[in-house]
Amino acid sequence: MRALVFDGEVRVTDVPMPRLEKGEALVRVLTAGICKTDLEIINGYMNFQGILGHEFVGIVEECSNPHLRGKRVVGEINCACGQCEYCQLEMPHHCLNRSVLGIRNRSGAFAEYIALPEGNLHVVPGSIRDDVAVFAEPTAAAFRITEQVSVEDERIIVLGDGKLGQLVAQVLWLYSKRLVCVGKHQWKLDLLNKLHITTAHANDPIERGGDIVVDATGSYEGFVRALELVRPEGAIILKTTITHPTALDLSLPVINEVRIIGSRCGPFRPALEALALGNVEVRPMITERYALNEGVRAVERARADGVMKVLLHV
Amino acid sequence: MRALVFDGEVRVTDVPMPRLEKGEALVRVLTAGICKTDLEIINGYMNFQGILGHEFVGIVEECSNPHLRGKRVVGEINCACGQCEYCQLEMPHHCLNRSVLGIRNRSGAFAEYIALPEGNLHVVPGSIRDDVAVFAEPTAAAFRITEQVSVEDERIIVLGDGKLGQLVAQVLWLYSKRLVCVGKHQWKLDLLNKLHITTAHANDPIERGGDIVVDATGSYEGFVRALELVRPEGAIILKTTITHPTALDLSLPVINEVRIIGSRCGPFRPALEALALGNVEVRPMITERYALNEGVRAVERARADGVMKVLLHV
Repeated sequence: MRALVFDGEVRVTDVPMPRLEKGEALVRVLTAGICKTDLEIINGYMNFQGILGHEFVGIVEECSNPHLRGKRVVGEINCACGQCEYCQLEMPHHCLNRSVLGIRNRSGAFAEYIALPEGNLHVVPGSIRDDVAVFAEPTAAAFRITEQVSVEDERIIVLGDGKLGQLVAQVLWLYSKRLVCVGKHQWKLDLLNKLHITTAHANDPIERGGDIVVDATGSYEGFVRALELVRPEGAIILKTTITHPTALDLSLPVINEVRIIGSRCGPFRPALEALALGNVEVRPMITERYALNEGVRAVERARADGVMKVLLHV
Repeated sequence: MRALVFDGEVRVTDVPMPRLEKGEALVRVLTAGICKTDLEIINGYMNFQGILGHEFVGIVEECSNPHLRGKRVVGEINCACGQCEYCQLEMPHHCLNRSVLGIRNRSGAFAEYIALPEGNLHVVPGSIRDDVAVFAEPTAAAFRITEQVSVEDERIIVLGDGKLGQLVAQVLWLYSKRLVCVGKHQWKLDLLNKLHITTAHANDPIERGGDIVVDATGSYEGFVRALELVRPEGAIILKTTITHPTALDLSLPVINEVRIIGSRCGPFRPALEALALGNVEVRPMITERYALNEGVRAVERARADGVMKVLLHV
């Protein structure tokens, strides 16, 4: 089958079909999305080499569960061992032996086929188009915040107007209208403004004292700004991995007793519901589409200014 | 009156008596304790100049409340305005306009007399000696952790065998016997061992996966170690202010969804109770005692290796 692999360089090539382990389904990929994490992996993050990609929608071609066969699905990306102490504690996405689709020890979704445990799959309602369903994974990551802190009617500041920042702003807007999304790109902020979500330019003064500040900038400066903007005993949600060592003065969060909370993958059920109801609007974020065979070009474009979500049609 | 002041250099000198504002009491200081924060202020922390000191026990000499007059008291160090948004939210120790005894806009306790709002004072039970009562403030800071996270029977790792680390270990030991205090000084760890509290040397391997890791090292290395030792979705309590910029890789706490929680001042009531019952044993930590007039020497000694708590008798 064809696949986009990274093994020091990015290229599209022929690779063997996935071999199914017990309990796994074979999924034929329809559409996949390029995420910033994919670009970071190419920069060396996680030391992953192999088939990239973890945002997808596809059709189940082989599996033991007859209710899944032939169904259109999206999938959770963490594959747990079921045995380790964190699996026993019902924290499978922190499984010590986990593989993660396209990120750690498991071939990813920029390919004609993938293998995933049946339990990871969620059937996509017919009302959700492929190019919307492919956003289920990052939308779930945005919903993760609602499991970690109380967001209802809180004063929320979302830093970052990229794909994840936009999803976080849209999801948290469902819980609180006391929200502002802060970004550097007026055309990206305008996408949120069209949805009547409050925005501000990063160069403008922002009122301090946020109950919750979400850092979705992926930058050191974003985290420093979050420390300034959060109220005493408020929460900073770290949504993106800042991989380069970052110089921080940690006296401010101690004096202000701030909670800094790392946040990763989230629940698919509310994500699919929000996408089905149109409560989260993702299509305006899609700027370019490529065939899998044009994958190298697609990855290049995903890095470019003026580009948000790039989709791969398989 | 005599006082130990810092105005670029540390010296004992004559200063005017405190002038009482409305609602304040005049307290004659009996004994005061030198804290690491005092030493950091001398290094430039908080840009404070004036009379140092915030750990004290004293006698109320003047106040409007007849129940306090003549009583032996300890005192909370944050003096709130009662008006700002955080006072309204019942978070007076985060008051935007607060003064803090010996730390911010208020003369401290290394003096014959101090002024504090009556509401900040707590009468000391007769069974608590002066040299024990003076530990009420840092013991309260240790109890703060129990207000911030659930500690009951949790697996707790306390990093740091200094004064604060020892108080934190003793306080949290009351809630969980699944605790280990990690330090670099065997003689300090031995103080805890005598109380039957589990300890480990920092050079020894420590089992990872702490539910709660308290960083009371005051060092960059301590925080890095905490990030390694905490379990996924566990909590790191930052107990000491690391004022120099610190280089950190923030991807680990995001992937592991760690909560990093700043922690400062705490409740005096459980602290006084623990000191009265002997549940927290502080006298072995007292290594040297000086008269206020010997204050310069006392501060020098408080910095020395082999010295823990230094008391000033006024």
